Amino acid sequence: MRILVVNPNTTASMTATIAAAARTVASPGTEIVVAQSRDGPVSIEGFFDGAMSLPGLLAEIAAGERDGVDAHVIACFDDTGLDAARSLAAAPVIGIGEAACHLASLVANRFSVVTTLSRSIPVLEQNLARYGLAARCGRVRAAEVPVLELDDPGSDARRRISDEIRLAIRDDRAEAIVLGCAGMAPLAASLATEHGVPVVEGVSAAVKLAESLYALGLKTSKIGAWTAPRAKARGAAAEFLAAENRP
Amino acid sequence: MRILVVNPNTTASMTATIAAAARTVASPGTEIVVAQSRDGPVSIEGFFDGAMSLPGLLAEIAAGERDGVDAHVIACFDDTGLDAARSLAAAPVIGIGEAACHLASLVANRFSVVTTLSRSIPVLEQNLARYGLAARCGRVRAAEVPVLELDDPGSDARRRISDEIRLAIRDDRAEAIVLGCAGMAPLAASLATEHGVPVVEGVSAAVKLAESLYALGLKTSKIGAWTAPRAKARGAAAEFLAAENRP
Amino acid sequence: MRILVVNPNTTASMTATIAAAARTVASPGTEIVVAQSRDGPVSIEGFFDGAMSLPGLLAEIAAGERDGVDAHVIACFDDTGLDAARSLAAAPVIGIGEAACHLASLVANRFSVVTTLSRSIPVLEQNLARYGLAARCGRVRAAEVPVLELDDPGSDARRRISDEIRLAIRDDRAEAIVLGCAGMAPLAASLATEHGVPVVEGVSAAVKLAESLYALGLKTSKIGAWTAPRAKARGAAAEFLAAENRP
Amino acid sequence: MRILVVNPNTTASMTATIAAAARTVASPGTEIVVAQSRDGPVSIEGFFDGAMSLPGLLAEIAAGERDGVDAHVIACFDDTGLDAARSLAAAPVIGIGEAACHLASLVANRFSVVTTLSRSIPVLEQNLARYGLAARCGRVRAAEVPVLELDDPGSDARRRISDEIRLAIRDDRAEAIVLGCAGMAPLAASLATEHGVPVVEGVSAAVKLAESLYALGLKTSKIGAWTAPRAKARGAAAEFLAAENRP
Amino acid sequence: MRILVVNPNTTASMTATIAAAARTVASPGTEIVVAQSRDGPVSIEGFFDGAMSLPGLLAEIAAGERDGVDAHVIACFDDTGLDAARSLAAAPVIGIGEAACHLASLVANRFSVVTTLSRSIPVLEQNLARYGLAARCGRVRAAEVPVLELDDPGSDARRRISDEIRLAIRDDRAEAIVLGCAGMAPLAASLATEHGVPVVEGVSAAVKLAESLYALGLKTSKIGAWTAPRAKARGAAAEFLAAENRP
Amino acid sequence: MRILVVNPNTTASMTATIAAAARTVASPGTEIVVAQSRDGPVSIEGFFDGAMSLPGLLAEIAAGERDGVDAHVIACFDDTGLDAARSLAAAPVIGIGEAACHLASLVANRFSVVTTLSRSIPVLEQNLARYGLAARCGRVRAAEVPVLELDDPGSDARRRISDEIRLAIRDDRAEAIVLGCAGMAPLAASLATEHGVPVVEGVSAAVKLAESLYALGLKTSKIGAWTAPRAKARGAAAEFLAAENRP
Repeated sequence: MRILVVNPNTTASMTATIAAAARTVASPGTEIVVAQSRDGPVSIEGFFDGAMSLPGLLAEIAAGERDGVDAHVIACFDDTGLDAARSLAAAPVIGIGEAACHLASLVANRFSVVTTLSRSIPVLEQNLARYGLAARCGRVRAAEVPVLELDDPGSDARRRISDEIRLAIRDDRAEAIVLGCAGMAPLAASLATEHGVPVVEGVSAAVKLAESLYALGLKTSKIGAWTAPRAKARGAAAEFLAAENRP
Repeated sequence: MRILVVNPNTTASMTATIAAAARTVASPGTEIVVAQSRDGPVSIEGFFDGAMSLPGLLAEIAAGERDGVDAHVIACFDDTGLDAARSLAAAPVIGIGEAACHLASLVANRFSVVTTLSRSIPVLEQNLARYGLAARCGRVRAAEVPVLELDDPGSDARRRISDEIRLAIRDDRAEAIVLGCAGMAPLAASLATEHGVPVVEGVSAAVKLAESLYALGLKTSKIGAWTAPRAKARGAAAEFLAAENRP
Repeated sequence: MRILVVNPNTTASMTATIAAAARTVASPGTEIVVAQSRDGPVSIEGFFDGAMSLPGLLAEIAAGERDGVDAHVIACFDDTGLDAARSLAAAPVIGIGEAACHLASLVANRFSVVTTLSRSIPVLEQNLARYGLAARCGRVRAAEVPVLELDDPGSDARRRISDEIRLAIRDDRAEAIVLGCAGMAPLAASLATEHGVPVVEGVSAAVKLAESLYALGLKTSKIGAWTAPRAKARGAAAEFLAAENRP
Repeated sequence: MRILVVNPNTTASMTATIAAAARTVASPGTEIVVAQSRDGPVSIEGFFDGAMSLPGLLAEIAAGERDGVDAHVIACFDDTGLDAARSLAAAPVIGIGEAACHLASLVANRFSVVTTLSRSIPVLEQNLARYGLAARCGRVRAAEVPVLELDDPGSDARRRISDEIRLAIRDDRAEAIVLGCAGMAPLAASLATEHGVPVVEGVSAAVKLAESLYALGLKTSKIGAWTAPRAKARGAAAEFLAAENRP
Repeated sequence: MRILVVNPNTTASMTATIAAAARTVASPGTEIVVAQSRDGPVSIEGFFDGAMSLPGLLAEIAAGERDGVDAHVIACFDDTGLDAARSLAAAPVIGIGEAACHLASLVANRFSVVTTLSRSIPVLEQNLARYGLAARCGRVRAAEVPVLELDDPGSDARRRISDEIRLAIRDDRAEAIVLGCAGMAPLAASLATEHGVPVVEGVSAAVKLAESLYALGLKTSKIGAWTAPRAKARGAAAEFLAAENRP
Repeated sequence: MRILVVNPNTTASMTATIAAAARTVASPGTEIVVAQSRDGPVSIEGFFDGAMSLPGLLAEIAAGERDGVDAHVIACFDDTGLDAARSLAAAPVIGIGEAACHLASLVANRFSVVTTLSRSIPVLEQNLARYGLAARCGRVRAAEVPVLELDDPGSDARRRISDEIRLAIRDDRAEAIVLGCAGMAPLAASLATEHGVPVVEGVSAAVKLAESLYALGLKTSKIGAWTAPRAKARGAAAEFLAAENRP
C-alpha cells in the first residue's frame, strides 16, 4: 500500500524528520510518500497558523487522491484540517494527534500530552474533547519550546520536554506520555527509556493506524459528517479538485 | 462604532441579505461595514467548504483591522475561522452561530437549531459542545434546504423550515428556535409569529453582542488561546498581515 | 426602553453602586429604573441568603411588570431567583452572573470568577454548570471579602481581589476575569488595566444584554421551563400578583 | 429519634398523605412530626411556586431546629430549598426527590421519573444533573396530572401515570420508576405490582435515609456549601432565626 | 431481616473488623450474617485482585440466596462484582463503596475519598463515574497504606490517613471524607472528631441502606442490566447455582 | 511476532470463528495463537457471565505470558477482564470491543454498535463511557440474537442484525456500524456491502492494533492503574502465576 504523509508546514527539515519517523515503522509492503505544503506557515503554532495551513494541506491531499494513495496522514499534532480532508478524500485520513492519543489510551489509563508552546494547549484540548479522550488525558502541557527549535542541535529543547514529562508523571498521575509535535519524533525512544513509561509519538502511530485501516478495508464513511463536498455553480471544492495541477 | 460584517462565502445576494439583517438592528451610532470573501465557496455547507473559506475570510478580517473597525462579525452560522480571526484581530470578533445560541439560552431553557443540510449538523454540534451550550440544545436539525435555495423565491424552503420547527417544539421540547444559517434571517419574524416561540437569528444577534462588547470596552484576551500569531522567518501570518493590499 | 434593575439585598449603598454601573453603560434611549428589595438580607452570601431574598426580589419584578418595564436585571451575581422571575415576567430577565459569564466566553477561551466569600463558590459552580459554561471556567475563586466590605473605603478588599486575579492568571490559565459580585463593579476598569486582561462586570453586562434582547424583540419563551404560574384556588402566585400594591 | 417532615405547600389533604407515607415505613423508635407551611402555594408546580414556598418551608425547618428534631425531610419532589435548609439546620436534611433517585440507582441501572406537569421537568432535570444522577435517569416524564388532582378520587390520574410508566419501560429502557410527586405515594405499591418493576416513592425513601444518617451519626458538614448563615447587622437570617415564634 | 455481609478477601481479621462495623449499626430486628470468601486474594488492591476475588465472592452470594437472606452487602470498597451479584441475586445487593459515597453526598456538597494504595484510585474513579457521583468527589486520594497494615497495631496507618484527610480539606475543598477501605471502619469516629467534618465509612453505610431497601420493599430490577443469567446448555451460571454445596 | 487471541468462553465453534477472523488479517510476520478458556460460560451475555469467565480467561493470559507472546487479544466484545489482564501481563493487551470502537471513530464521526442481547447493552455503554467514546456512539443496539445462534446456519440472525443496522443508520445518524460480538465477524463484509457504510469487526481490529503496538514498541504502562499485582503472603495473584501449569 501507499500512504501519503503530508507535512502541512513549509519547513523542509521538519518534513525530513517526519519522513524518517514514518519510514522507520512502515511495514515491508508499505510505501511512504511524503509531501510538504507549498504555501502556508513555516510551523503551526496555534489556531491562526492552523487555519493558514489549510489550503496548502488540502492541495496535497487532493494530489494524493489523484495519485491514488491508499491512505493519508496529516503530520501536524493539531490534526489541522482533518474533518475537511476526510470530506475531500476517498482514502482514509489519520491525524497524528488522534493516532497518538488513541494508542496511548491502550497502554495507559491516563496519559498527558507534552507539546511545544502554550498557545497550542487550547487547540489540543479542543481536539481531545472532540475525540472523546479528554477524560483519559491528565493534562496538556507545554514545554515552551517553539516548533523549529526542535531541529536546532544547540537548543535545550530535549531537557525542557523531559522536565515537563517528569512533572506530568508526578503531578498529573500520567502513566504514559504523548509527544505533542511531529518534530519531537526523534526523542520518543530515549525519553521512554529515561522515564520508564510509554512515550507515544504521532507520526509512527498514524502510519500503523493507516496500515490497519487499509488491511481491514475500512474507509471514511461518506454519509454524515464527512460526505463529499457538493458540486456547486462556481464552488471552490469542484474547482479545487479540478484545477489543481501538480506535476 | 464601526462593525465589519464579513460574509465568508462569495454569493452577493447572500451578502445583501446579511447586510439588511445587520442594519435593521444596528443602534443609531453604529456603522455596519459589509464585506464578502473574494475567494472561496459560493456557500458553506459542511467541513470542507468551511476550510476552503478561511483565507478569504481572514483576508477580510485583516483588512478590517487595518481599517480600524471596532468589531468583526463572521456571518456564517458555522462560526468558521472564529478562533483564527480572534487570534488575528485586536478588535473583538463574534460568530453568528455563537451569538444566536448564547442569546437563545437567555430566553429559553432549551432550544433547537434548524439548519440547512444535514452535513452541517456535526459542525454545529461540535461548536455547541465547545461553547458549552450543547446541554441547552435539544437537537440540531436540518431542513435539507441547500443554502442558496434560501434566496430562491420559488423554493418551498420556508415551509420545510417551518415543518422542522414544529417537530422541534413537539419532539425536542424546544422552547425557542435558533435559525442555523445567515440566509434564514428574513424568515425569523414570521416564523416566530407562526410558532409562538422566540426565533433567534444570528446576524442580528451578533451585531447586538458586538455593540455590547464595544460599549463595555471588552476586547479579545491576548494571552492564551487567541494570542497574536508569532512573527516567523517566512511565516504566513506576518506575510499575510503585511502583504495583503486592499484598496 | 426601560430596564428595571433590582438589587435583591436591602443595602442602599450597594443599590447606589449598582445604579451607577448600570447607568454608565446604558444607551441613550435606555432608562434605568433601580429598585431595592424591601425585605430580605442586607447582603447575599450563600444559599440561605439567596433563598431569603426571593420574596422581596420577586415583589420588585412583579411591580416592574405592572409598570410595564421592557426588561429586568437581577443585580446579584448568584442570579438568585432567575428561573422564578422568568416564569413571573413577560419582559425578559437577565441575571448579572450569567451576563458576565456569557460575555466573558466571547473574549476569552477560559475565564476565572473571583467572588467574595468561599461559601458562594458552590452557588456559582452550580450556576455555571447549568448555563453550560463550567467547561469555560478555570475556577471560581473567593477573595474572602464580605460583600459589604466592598463599600468600606478603609478595607483592603481591592488588594485581596487583585491578588486572587494574579493567581487565576498564573494557576488557572485564565485569559479573562469575571468579577463575582455586583459590589465589585467600580473596580473593573482599574483591575483590567492592572492585569492586562479583560475584566467583566455583571451589572453593565446585563444592561447591554437586556438592551440586545429588546432590540431583537426577544422575550422569555412561555412554553416549558418558564411558563407562567398556574392560577390556583388559593395559590400564592395569583395572590402575589394581585395583592402586591406598590405606590 | 424524631424526624420533622415538612410539606412545603399549604394543602392539608396532601400533608395527610405525606404523613401516612412517612409513618408507614418509620422504624419503631422513630417519631414522625409533620408540619405544613403556613404561607405559600397550595401546590408546587414549577420554578415560581418553588421560590414562593421557601419562606414558609424555612420557617418550619427553623421551628424544627428549635424543637430539637434529629432530622428534617422536605416533602416536595422538587427538593425545593434543600441547600438553604441544610445551611440553616444543624440536623441533617433530606429531600424526597434526591432520596428516591439515590435509592432507585441501587436497584436499577437506569430509572425514569414520572412527575405531574411538564413545567416541573426542567426543575427535576436540573436537580438530577446536580446530584450526579442524570446519567442514570432515562427520562423525566410528565403525566400531565396537576398535583391536587392526585387527591381527587374521580380523577383518572392513576391511569395516566400508569400509561407513562409503560412508555418509560418500553422507550427509555427504564428498569425502575421514580414517582415524581409526594402526592403519588399511595400509588407506589399497586403500580409496582402492575408493571413488575421497582417503583420508588420519595417520602418513604427520605424517612429511611434520615434514619440511616441518624444511626450513623452523620450530620450536614458545616464547612463549604452549607455553612451556617453569617450574623449580619440587620440580616434576614439572624432575624429570621430569632423572631420566628411558633407556639 | 437478615443481611449477608460478604468479605470478598480471605483474611479473617478483616472479616472480624467488618462484622463489628456492621453489627454496631444494625437495627434491633436485623441479623447480620457474615461470610468470607473461601478462595481469592488476601486483600483486594487494584483491578487484578478484584477480578480474582469474583468466584469466591459470587459463591457466597449464591449461598446467601439459597439461605434466603433479605439483602447482601459486598464489603470491599471497590464494589467488586456488584453488577454480577445483582444479576445473580433476587435480594438487593449493596456495595460499601457506593453506599458511603451516596450518603456522603447527602451531608456534603463535595467529598474526597481516602483509600489505601494508589493502584486503587483508578478503580474507584471508574466506579464514581459510573454511579454519577464523580462530580461530587473532589479527589480520590491514597494514603499509601497496604490494606493488611490497617490491622497492624504498630503501623502508622492512622497518621498517614489523617494527613491525607487534612490535605483533602485544604486542597480539594472537601466538606466530608469517605474512607476508601472496609478495614478503615474502626477509624471513622475518631477521624471525624479530629477533623471536624463528617467521615463516612462504607460497611455501616451499606447496612443502613440494605435495611432501608428492605423496609421499602425494593429489590433489584430484573429487566435490563441485572436480569438473571440465562440457562445454557453447559452454562456456568446454571451449574454454579446448582452445584455449589455449602454446608 | 506472536499474538495470543483468547476466546473467554468455552464454545469451540466460536473459537474457530475467532481464529479465522484473526488469521485473515494478520500480517505475514504475525503468528496467531488461539486459546479457549477451560472453565467458564459457553457464551458471555451480561455482567454475570462476564464475571464467571475471568479466572479461565486470566489463566490463558498467564499461560501466554509464560510462553512469551508479544501481545494478547481478549476476543469478547465486552472486553471482559481487560483491566485485570493488563495488570497481569507484560505484553500489551487489546480488547476487541475497544479495538473496534477506536477504529470506527477514525472512519465515522458517529457510529452505532449492534450487539446480541439487550442485557449486554449496559455492559457496552459502561465500556464506551470509560474509553471516552460514548459521545461518538449514537446508540448501542441489540438484535436480540443469542450469541450461540450466530453459529446456527438455520437462524435468521443475519437478517435481524441487518434490520438493526438499517435502524441505526436511519434513526441514530450512524455513519458506521460496529458489530458487538466476536461471533459476528463472518458477517462484516457482506453487511458493509449491503448497507454502504463501514462495518467494523473487533477481532480483526484488535489484531491490527496489537501489531501496531508491537511495531511501535509500546507496552502497558506499569505505573498507575495497571501496575503488576503485589506479592502477598498467600495472595491469589502470586499463587495464580506460579501454580498454573499449562502443558
